[in-house]
Amino acid sequence: MLVSTYKLRVRYAETDKMGYAYYGVYSTYLEIARVEALRSIGISYATMESDGIMLPVRDVRLRYRRPLKYDDLFTISTTIASLPEGSRLHFTYQIHNEAGELCTEAETTLVFADAQTGRPIAPPDSFISALRPFVKE
Amino acid sequence: MLVSTYKLRVRYAETDKMGYAYYGVYSTYLEIARVEALRSIGISYATMESDGIMLPVRDVRLRYRRPLKYDDLFTISTTIASLPEGSRLHFTYQIHNEAGELCTEAETTLVFADAQTGRPIAPPDSFISALRPFVKE
Amino acid sequence: MLVSTYKLRVRYAETDKMGYAYYGVYSTYLEIARVEALRSIGISYATMESDGIMLPVRDVRLRYRRPLKYDDLFTISTTIASLPEGSRLHFTYQIHNEAGELCTEAETTLVFADAQTGRPIAPPDSFISALRPFVKE
Amino acid sequence: MLVSTYKLRVRYAETDKMGYAYYGVYSTYLEIARVEALRSIGISYATMESDGIMLPVRDVRLRYRRPLKYDDLFTISTTIASLPEGSRLHFTYQIHNEAGELCTEAETTLVFADAQTGRPIAPPDSFISALRPFVKE
Repeated sequence: MLVSTYKLRVRYAETDKMGYAYYGVYSTYLEIARVEALRSIGISYATMESDGIMLPVRDVRLRYRRPLKYDDLFTISTTIASLPEGSRLHFTYQIHNEAGELCTEAETTLVFADAQTGRPIAPPDSFISALRPFVKE
Repeated sequence: MLVSTYKLRVRYAETDKMGYAYYGVYSTYLEIARVEALRSIGISYATMESDGIMLPVRDVRLRYRRPLKYDDLFTISTTIASLPEGSRLHFTYQIHNEAGELCTEAETTLVFADAQTGRPIAPPDSFISALRPFVKE
Repeated sequence: MLVSTYKLRVRYAETDKMGYAYYGVYSTYLEIARVEALRSIGISYATMESDGIMLPVRDVRLRYRRPLKYDDLFTISTTIASLPEGSRLHFTYQIHNEAGELCTEAETTLVFADAQTGRPIAPPDSFISALRPFVKE
Repeated sequence: MLVSTYKLRVRYAETDKMGYAYYGVYSTYLEIARVEALRSIGISYATMESDGIMLPVRDVRLRYRRPLKYDDLFTISTTIASLPEGSRLHFTYQIHNEAGELCTEAETTLVFADAQTGRPIAPPDSFISALRPFVKE
């Protein structure tokens, strides 16, 4: 199981008039967290896109348990539990605040796709090789 | 069943380097769609907040079927199928592009909460009265 | 002088914890307003980009006089006073709230550029032809 | 002169279909940079707001020289050159990419204001005391 953690701080731009991080901005937090999770095992998402492979999101699910507030420093734990199934790659996430309380749970499915055609493709071998040591087959 | 439709256009700010509407911006689309759905039956979310009641999002689920591109004009259909259960209010959504193709499906649960304490509360009577004619009990 | 007006409403996503439209979101408002100003004289920015010409922003200036609040319906007036000078195109903007009060003033300079190389280029003839009837030479 | 530097990375959410950081997102970068500049001399903007003082932006000016691209790591240098004049506080900014090239220049004026009334007020003494050692009178 690949588990990667990353710390972020709630920006003023991300708050709404309730004074909380806006519910839509969590998708951005998840994106940053999974890019950093991949970077931690030597995979650059930017390079992958330059090489003609993109990873659009197929579905997302978010459960908001406690709000994050302006300037809160929080930790996202990102987990990849298994190799891609076909062209699909699954991530789960947990966000904890500085007090260690669970604030948000999420999961996303992404799809390896050809940047030209938009069609699903098999994950590149280099991706599988980098991920395999961490996950169950 | 209350069904409300609203048209929006993809802003340049909302695109990402794939050239599509960024997956995180759909949460904003859903927010606009449900505010307009409530406005269509005489409920102002802005007024409700001024009156001390807020409606934070408890959970969201999005399924992306086809991308929206820059300047695409799309239609969001928002459905409220039933009265709130306790303090929870459920919405479902569908997004179609100009060709009439289904692009996105979503659902959200929101919670009536006291703006001071953040605690769940019963929906205001005026809300129930405005919604009741449209939904099954 | 080409003067185009467009109405927008402040989204919840665009508010910040002060309860106002976040100062950074005005750049998005300006972008929408100028795209609609061009559309009003038959120029599609989306088509222009597909044809390999982009219009990145060179500079922006914003003066915030009165805040916009959540759900405020406001009007942006966009003015193009003259043809492009070389590859530069200048816009000025005013935002008024529903009470008719001036809330924001802005100006931007954009640059016609080749989408492949990023280099400044002359505006396309079709652009000049569409704009000329409205502006002083 | 207080000069503070802060590093940020361009998020995927911040790119647009040109593949660059969207021009509107720089306002967010400036906001983060000035909050961190104040934090570096012991001033918490979050605490100041809790204490009833806010700092809305009065005007902003941005000059885009070179684009930032997805995943670029960049440095913002924030400068406060002098104490507030009346209720106004002035910041200037420079953004450099990893190659050390100047990408963006900016300046903003902010106004100390009462969070209840929105009216301009004198800066708090604690703010002046914290800043005075670094700037010319």
